[in-house]
Amino acid sequence: MEFTLAQIAAMLGGTVEGDEQAKVNSLGKIEEAKAGDLSFLANTKYESHIYKTKATVVIVANDFKPSKEISANLIRVADPYVGFTTLLEQYQKLVQSSKSGVEAPSFMAASASIGENSYRGAFSYIGENVSIGKNVQIYPHSYIGDNVTIGDDTILYSGVKIYANSVIGNNCTFNAGVVIGSGGFGFAPQADGTYKDIPQLGNVIIEDHVNIGANTTIDCATLGSTVIKKGVKLDNLVQIAHNVTVGENTVMAAQAGIAGSVTIGKNCVFGGQSALAGHITIADKTSLGGKAATNRNIKKEGLELLGQPAQEVKGFFSDVVNIKRIPKLMDQVKKLEEKVLTLTNR
Amino acid sequence: MEFTLAQIAAMLGGTVEGDEQAKVNSLGKIEEAKAGDLSFLANTKYESHIYKTKATVVIVANDFKPSKEISANLIRVADPYVGFTTLLEQYQKLVQSSKSGVEAPSFMAASASIGENSYRGAFSYIGENVSIGKNVQIYPHSYIGDNVTIGDDTILYSGVKIYANSVIGNNCTFNAGVVIGSGGFGFAPQADGTYKDIPQLGNVIIEDHVNIGANTTIDCATLGSTVIKKGVKLDNLVQIAHNVTVGENTVMAAQAGIAGSVTIGKNCVFGGQSALAGHITIADKTSLGGKAATNRNIKKEGLELLGQPAQEVKGFFSDVVNIKRIPKLMDQVKKLEEKVLTLTNR
Amino acid sequence: MEFTLAQIAAMLGGTVEGDEQAKVNSLGKIEEAKAGDLSFLANTKYESHIYKTKATVVIVANDFKPSKEISANLIRVADPYVGFTTLLEQYQKLVQSSKSGVEAPSFMAASASIGENSYRGAFSYIGENVSIGKNVQIYPHSYIGDNVTIGDDTILYSGVKIYANSVIGNNCTFNAGVVIGSGGFGFAPQADGTYKDIPQLGNVIIEDHVNIGANTTIDCATLGSTVIKKGVKLDNLVQIAHNVTVGENTVMAAQAGIAGSVTIGKNCVFGGQSALAGHITIADKTSLGGKAATNRNIKKEGLELLGQPAQEVKGFFSDVVNIKRIPKLMDQVKKLEEKVLTLTNR
Repeated sequence: MEFTLAQIAAMLGGTVEGDEQAKVNSLGKIEEAKAGDLSFLANTKYESHIYKTKATVVIVANDFKPSKEISANLIRVADPYVGFTTLLEQYQKLVQSSKSGVEAPSFMAASASIGENSYRGAFSYIGENVSIGKNVQIYPHSYIGDNVTIGDDTILYSGVKIYANSVIGNNCTFNAGVVIGSGGFGFAPQADGTYKDIPQLGNVIIEDHVNIGANTTIDCATLGSTVIKKGVKLDNLVQIAHNVTVGENTVMAAQAGIAGSVTIGKNCVFGGQSALAGHITIADKTSLGGKAATNRNIKKEGLELLGQPAQEVKGFFSDVVNIKRIPKLMDQVKKLEEKVLTLTNR
Repeated sequence: MEFTLAQIAAMLGGTVEGDEQAKVNSLGKIEEAKAGDLSFLANTKYESHIYKTKATVVIVANDFKPSKEISANLIRVADPYVGFTTLLEQYQKLVQSSKSGVEAPSFMAASASIGENSYRGAFSYIGENVSIGKNVQIYPHSYIGDNVTIGDDTILYSGVKIYANSVIGNNCTFNAGVVIGSGGFGFAPQADGTYKDIPQLGNVIIEDHVNIGANTTIDCATLGSTVIKKGVKLDNLVQIAHNVTVGENTVMAAQAGIAGSVTIGKNCVFGGQSALAGHITIADKTSLGGKAATNRNIKKEGLELLGQPAQEVKGFFSDVVNIKRIPKLMDQVKKLEEKVLTLTNR
Repeated sequence: MEFTLAQIAAMLGGTVEGDEQAKVNSLGKIEEAKAGDLSFLANTKYESHIYKTKATVVIVANDFKPSKEISANLIRVADPYVGFTTLLEQYQKLVQSSKSGVEAPSFMAASASIGENSYRGAFSYIGENVSIGKNVQIYPHSYIGDNVTIGDDTILYSGVKIYANSVIGNNCTFNAGVVIGSGGFGFAPQADGTYKDIPQLGNVIIEDHVNIGANTTIDCATLGSTVIKKGVKLDNLVQIAHNVTVGENTVMAAQAGIAGSVTIGKNCVFGGQSALAGHITIADKTSLGGKAATNRNIKKEGLELLGQPAQEVKGFFSDVVNIKRIPKLMDQVKKLEEKVLTLTNR
């Protein structure tokens, strides 16, 4: 597939600076691109690459002003990142064909149903009374326990494990090794130091447009439901414990961990390896930085938090700076003590 | 299934306050319960819910004194949490039927054996010379390597992977994606900067009544055994390295990580994302808080530790408070310097 | 299998101190060894064990000088650790037979190929146009997506998941549950607070002699490749995000997490639960301690870093000590204020 710059500019509603008839046939990162590649510059942090890139064309912002000569052609648009994403989507549709059909051997209980145009990979397992929508892709080694419901256009990559009674929405993507509905971590301490298992009778509900990264785990509720609301994006190796609710469009980077019975608001952003202790509530639009952790309710919306225990960013960095001031303070105090001793004795 | 409050009170050895003939048919969390639900109040932190709950009956402690009117009926018992757990167990037995039988296709080596009343899901794999007890449930996609031994009444959920030569006890529950016996992380540095693999020839021994959360990993020993003693409870995504011993009834929350050759005592409690460096020994009843980490032996029993490096809780919180006092200290010192200068010059 | 000490000494180029004709038939840790075992003492931290060990022979360094009597025989070599590792390798070859052949049922697309002397376990899946070298071991439940290339002598343990278009080298070992090539975590924020998926069109390239621990995840690049260079060793539950490059012979302990577009140099060492924020570059031979994290470029080679934010080790420990000095400083300042007040008033 080959496109002229004029064709691409038309697709994006942009304008060409350079050779409108130049052709591209591939996409490339600006620092690695070769002739025939299309690239983009969204973050000015990477501006230096544009003066050296071998890309045939670079998508830039309407207001981008080069400080040196650029050998590549340019296509100017309002938002280069959105423009590039749009192209990626078009490109993906062209190069990636969805899987469909049934590979053998695979397992589907007689009481289960699946909609049209779906894919069931070899060694996939679908239990009793499962109900699956249309255009669903179930890769090899996926496990879908009894009574699970899955909406339309959802993708389960290889080895996804969904426990019985889970409810999954439309347009979700679960990466390989995701576990949904595992037994929550609940144990009642006994007088002799042992623990008695607390049966975990609830389930997990995952709404539409939820993406989940590889090997992430979401426990079922003890009673009721662990709920992942629509538009949530979870990265790899994230832990969501029993009875947690994650609000709409909240995003968590890899290895974040949420303890039991936490309620998280909408449009929050969690950094990698961040953590919440159990039984707390987090306001909408909270930003918890990488490795930050708290065991307190966050009531005010939109706070940016860092550290352990988490505090507002400004306070965190003040601490980092202030600790380094202690040696000088000690020195000042020592000198003052000497001077005061001298004054006292004179 | 429906029960009168009189029936439930009899089951728990409790007393009814209210309508003994009222009926319940479900369980619910106190803040979400609806008419027909049975709920409980164990933690007074949640007391406010009892004045608003729609549950038909709430299990409370014998010494609970309401501060307002309660519309729900009450059943009074010595320990509401234990009472509720007992009911959950009974309820679970009624609603959840164990799996049994063999689904096709599945794989079992001719030299392997499995006891009566067990379940082998489709696509489960049982290697050479494996010996499995009775009432064992092996969900789809579980892998049991050569020479593994598994006791009675153990459950392996979907996709559990057990390497060759592991020894698993009775009444264990392994959630989906658990890996037992993976190669320990041992590499001998060579003069040229590369690493030579150190063969990992040991195994993993897991005693009775051990619960393991989804996608948790336990490495085999280099030589000898990595040992998880009876009653241990590990949450999701926990890492246990080669040659570690975890003592009886020790509990670890999600994403805790234990480095190689650590010996952990009995009845310890590890918070989420806590960590131990290699080759140390931890005394019985140690509590390591969320995200806390240490590389030192803990010799005294029963310490509560927090922070990185971990210290006793009191010291940790003093540090948090004291750092915030630095700016005022700087201010005081500056003023003192000015005053002392004035005094010196007068 | 039984060997005389004379045979073993000859194999290692060492010298026997004691009974050259004594026989050993097993390996054991020095503190657990029994009669008939061979053990080693490399770290003088464990010297006390050699005076109590029941091992028949202990491998020690040429310059080891016992401080008490030792009942075990000794074999002296230049480096006991290397010597022991050599023996382990020989021993492993003798006791562990490689798997080979094809177990049924398994799945291999007609367009795929695999070299001689390889193993395909039951329920393994090999997609379209996959090309696999010789002596490769593919354990049960492994998934190899379309167009993947795998070199010679590589081992995929049970349940490894490799997404389409990945490129894997020779002599690699992937432990159970490893995920290679999962969709990178890329989402473009929209004006209404939702996120649009950014298609992830790149792949993962893993060079030769790479070891990867259980349930570790490596995302594909958005465009281009996520690259793991030769000789890299990753422990369990590690996260490598999209577009990361990990340099030759770099080692990461369990639960380390690397965010997107990071470039890591050669021969670095990452401690457990350490982390890097996105879009940074780390110099060769950097050592990042357990739980340490940074969001800054590390330009100087060979630094040893600790803490959050990471700093050089010396600075980290100074902070730990200095924080504890604040209470005394406050006390000193208070006394100074009183004295200065007295001086001012006299």
